[in-house]
Amino acid sequence: MFNVDFEPVGRRGPCASDQSLLDCARQLSVDLVSICGGIGNCDHCKVQVISGRVSNPTLEEEASLSKSELEQGYRLACQAYPLSEIKLHVPPESLTAPQRTQVEGLEVDVLPEPPIRGLEAHLSAPTLDSPISDDSNLWASLHLPIGTIDFQVQQTLSKTLRDLNWNICVALRENEIIALGAPDTKWLGLAVDIGTTKIAGYLLDMESGKTLASKGMMNPQISYGEDVISRIVASSKSPENAIKLQTLLTDALSQLAVDLCAEISADPTNIVEAVVVGNTAIHHLFLRLPVKQLGLAPYIPAMRSSVDIKARELGLKIAPGAYVHLLPNIAGYVGADHVAMLLATRITEADKTTLAIDIGTNTEICLNHRGRMTSVSCASGPAFEGAHIKFGMRAAPGAIEHVRLLDGKLEIQTIGGEAPVGICGSGLLDVVAQLRLNNVLDKNGKMGEHPLLRKQNGSTEFVLAERDGQEPITLSQKDVRELQLAKAAIRLGIQALVQAEGIEEGDIEQVIIAGAFGTFIDVKSAITIAMLPPLPLERFKQVGNAAGTGARLALISQSQRTKANQIAEQDGYIELAAVPNFNRKFAEATYL
Amino acid sequence: MFNVDFEPVGRRGPCASDQSLLDCARQLSVDLVSICGGIGNCDHCKVQVISGRVSNPTLEEEASLSKSELEQGYRLACQAYPLSEIKLHVPPESLTAPQRTQVEGLEVDVLPEPPIRGLEAHLSAPTLDSPISDDSNLWASLHLPIGTIDFQVQQTLSKTLRDLNWNICVALRENEIIALGAPDTKWLGLAVDIGTTKIAGYLLDMESGKTLASKGMMNPQISYGEDVISRIVASSKSPENAIKLQTLLTDALSQLAVDLCAEISADPTNIVEAVVVGNTAIHHLFLRLPVKQLGLAPYIPAMRSSVDIKARELGLKIAPGAYVHLLPNIAGYVGADHVAMLLATRITEADKTTLAIDIGTNTEICLNHRGRMTSVSCASGPAFEGAHIKFGMRAAPGAIEHVRLLDGKLEIQTIGGEAPVGICGSGLLDVVAQLRLNNVLDKNGKMGEHPLLRKQNGSTEFVLAERDGQEPITLSQKDVRELQLAKAAIRLGIQALVQAEGIEEGDIEQVIIAGAFGTFIDVKSAITIAMLPPLPLERFKQVGNAAGTGARLALISQSQRTKANQIAEQDGYIELAAVPNFNRKFAEATYL
Repeated sequence: MFNVDFEPVGRRGPCASDQSLLDCARQLSVDLVSICGGIGNCDHCKVQVISGRVSNPTLEEEASLSKSELEQGYRLACQAYPLSEIKLHVPPESLTAPQRTQVEGLEVDVLPEPPIRGLEAHLSAPTLDSPISDDSNLWASLHLPIGTIDFQVQQTLSKTLRDLNWNICVALRENEIIALGAPDTKWLGLAVDIGTTKIAGYLLDMESGKTLASKGMMNPQISYGEDVISRIVASSKSPENAIKLQTLLTDALSQLAVDLCAEISADPTNIVEAVVVGNTAIHHLFLRLPVKQLGLAPYIPAMRSSVDIKARELGLKIAPGAYVHLLPNIAGYVGADHVAMLLATRITEADKTTLAIDIGTNTEICLNHRGRMTSVSCASGPAFEGAHIKFGMRAAPGAIEHVRLLDGKLEIQTIGGEAPVGICGSGLLDVVAQLRLNNVLDKNGKMGEHPLLRKQNGSTEFVLAERDGQEPITLSQKDVRELQLAKAAIRLGIQALVQAEGIEEGDIEQVIIAGAFGTFIDVKSAITIAMLPPLPLERFKQVGNAAGTGARLALISQSQRTKANQIAEQDGYIELAAVPNFNRKFAEATYL
Repeated sequence: MFNVDFEPVGRRGPCASDQSLLDCARQLSVDLVSICGGIGNCDHCKVQVISGRVSNPTLEEEASLSKSELEQGYRLACQAYPLSEIKLHVPPESLTAPQRTQVEGLEVDVLPEPPIRGLEAHLSAPTLDSPISDDSNLWASLHLPIGTIDFQVQQTLSKTLRDLNWNICVALRENEIIALGAPDTKWLGLAVDIGTTKIAGYLLDMESGKTLASKGMMNPQISYGEDVISRIVASSKSPENAIKLQTLLTDALSQLAVDLCAEISADPTNIVEAVVVGNTAIHHLFLRLPVKQLGLAPYIPAMRSSVDIKARELGLKIAPGAYVHLLPNIAGYVGADHVAMLLATRITEADKTTLAIDIGTNTEICLNHRGRMTSVSCASGPAFEGAHIKFGMRAAPGAIEHVRLLDGKLEIQTIGGEAPVGICGSGLLDVVAQLRLNNVLDKNGKMGEHPLLRKQNGSTEFVLAERDGQEPITLSQKDVRELQLAKAAIRLGIQALVQAEGIEEGDIEQVIIAGAFGTFIDVKSAITIAMLPPLPLERFKQVGNAAGTGARLALISQSQRTKANQIAEQDGYIELAAVPNFNRKFAEATYL
């Protein structure tokens, strides 16, 4: 065992000699980016050895790292093993945190019809003449017919009643008592949107329906791969992995509950209901459902229906008798988060022809035309999250998020105004759009002529930012291709939906763009690169994290849950891969 | 650590020097009798040291064991600690097993209305054109509206469907799928009567309602004390004890499931429903409910209502999605086993004035007079199980079970015809009745004159059996007093019930005697000692384990469950201690 020191994060701990530095980082909760899941073919878990000795570079490292990088001690954490006590520098772009996490979204504006009722009871202490059992006594004092009491609540009932001198507050769900508290206990609810990359959590008052606190965090499953396919592969590989992928989420959500409760000085055991949404793969990983059949055609979800599961069965540390409600999935790649988004955007109630898009590694799109709802899922890939892009990164401090090229002059803007370290999704859209507008890129996405273009190892790249003593940040021809593939998938999805309805893109009267990424893109740039159809700008509406809002709606309103089930049932799902002439249409959609 | 060898049981294992021989025996599953729970004031855990050294005798041992016993190496296992490798002889009377366990009872003669339906489904494999989710596919193929699927069943659904090539059998409970199997799976049910001393288990076919196998075993909680009060004290002492007392039961029931299934070559995971009955304390210990308030006046049950709990929440190893149904309790000392007994004896339907008695450490009695049901609980104590009786033992081989004293000639009969080692409850009733009939005992229970009477250490005792090289088996004056207290409690209970109805004992038209002990007593002897009222013998009916039959009825019939709930609600419970002039009446009831 050797001591490993991760700086500037400031985490230290022992690492076995047969353990990679990536494994060690995971153990110490240093969130290194690992897009490939640790097999050495992405170069995102780069770390710099400051002192100490590590194993010799592997072939993968020699392919991924430049000679100069290797000389400076840069290594891939997934490939390097400690040979002595070592000290590492973790460059910001290798860290998944801190990052902007989008919790802001649409307002929760429905009348609360909560699934939980808080009721007070004042019992008479039993006597030898009236030796009434504690459960019967409670029901009688609540003036309710005898229902059920959660098994673990029943285990604490007798002591709680006596400790509270027979005055108590219960949380009632349908006819089941799921939690006990002192009189005046405020019962709380937790709504969570688990994204592939980010998690948004909200704490609500179950009576008033008000949001009391919100918080974003990274999805810790990222250490098993940035996209859901890597995680499906990892989870299918062994039951231990499946358990680990689940507990990473449940532990994160338990921590989220602690953090949110801390903000209002409450206790997580006062959380008596949770609603969790995520895409179908995340949904399945969270419930430890089998995902193998989800990753292979015809991409079958194990479970489509909405479901209520006791929090303790999932290992979620809120009130042990609480239920976690999961909204229904629609298909293998159209999940409960999409249903939540549709719920929040009220697309079912729209009287205009409306398109709702949640852009991400997987982009879900829904069209409501004359009350008919159809959804499609597009494998837009992780380019928007920075993956497969040479200097790609997520929206973290130092990421180039906006770019203008005017009269040959390049202007860049980074997150937090910090020195540039990479380029995030919105920056990527901007730069490609600007290069197209300036004819640096042609319709096919081929780079032409510009003073900022340079040849590097035989390929062309556009220099975005020079850096002292470091390689400049550039956009490569290959990066442009990656973006073209991503945006083509989205555009093809939109086209498939309108064609299925026999209308034109121009007939779309309203476009709702949801999700963390969609909120930060420049719609003009997205139209310029032909990712979105060329509609008047006023038809577009960016609404932030609508899935989180949908989760909150379902948390506090039973009729919203019913509506979510109706949405999932009525939605006519189109399998994009089954669209006729897919390949030709896809090629056309790559045009800028 | 020293090796300890228990013979003739043939169990060996290590024992730490700070561990008593009783603890060691528990670890090795040597079931030593321990009435006091290991505090040295009963002498039932007697073992004989054959070789090796143990700690010096304690004051408790010097009080409990004779000088000659100590010289022969007899020790109390709870008081002795190993000082070297040792070999012990365990006398049969110190062992709780093997013993007769009563599983035979009344016939199960109701029409099955099982809570579980077995249904087959033949699904179509999903395709890219019809990528239906596995759960939706299953419900559609069952031609049922979408219900719920047990969470752990859902986790196995996708693989099971594919392994079985989309042909499947489900166990449906209301609208929940709780188990999956191959087509033609026979779903089984488990009915268990957990007595303070013995457990009776039955395996039933959930469709036909037929009993396929039955088996008795000892209640392993005995190592924490023979009566429920000792176990309540032990369980209240620490959460670890409470957990241990529960897991002893769940492990025993899991083993019972394995053993019963082995008899018919089935798998315990095919058991999809269980019904468990026991007295209120056992019920609470099994559910790990608090028992402290149950052991103190006014003896309040934490839980009275019937309840369904997932088997996995209890740690019971049958189908993980199976429910365990527990019948309702009536009061602190009138539990679900009493309800089951009333169910099986159909006392609610009796048109005669009927008394039902389940005799045990705690005796529950119910009177049905003109459709009004009233129950009472009597602390008859463990004398019938052999406790507090000098040569008392349970109904094990070598126990004197029948005694006749005719013309001054004593005849004894032992269980299995073996050499006598002690006297069990039915033998005790017999010998006291015979001594009373022969005027060796007067009405007050005082011993008079008889050639077989002898003085020992200043007290009188009746010699039942001489033994070579061992003390004779005797009945002491103190033993008679113990029996008087036990039988007085029962008689007083009967009197309280008839008085509450304003009738006389002679008005009782039918007496149903249930339970393992009640089956083996001589009713004439019980009348002679005035434990039972002097009614014509033809009014008495001994029915065996009626609680086990009641559990089986509730297992296979939902309307029997409803009836059990009605019984528990309608039963008018009398608290015996609250009866006016209790002490005077009790003293009168001790007369023989």
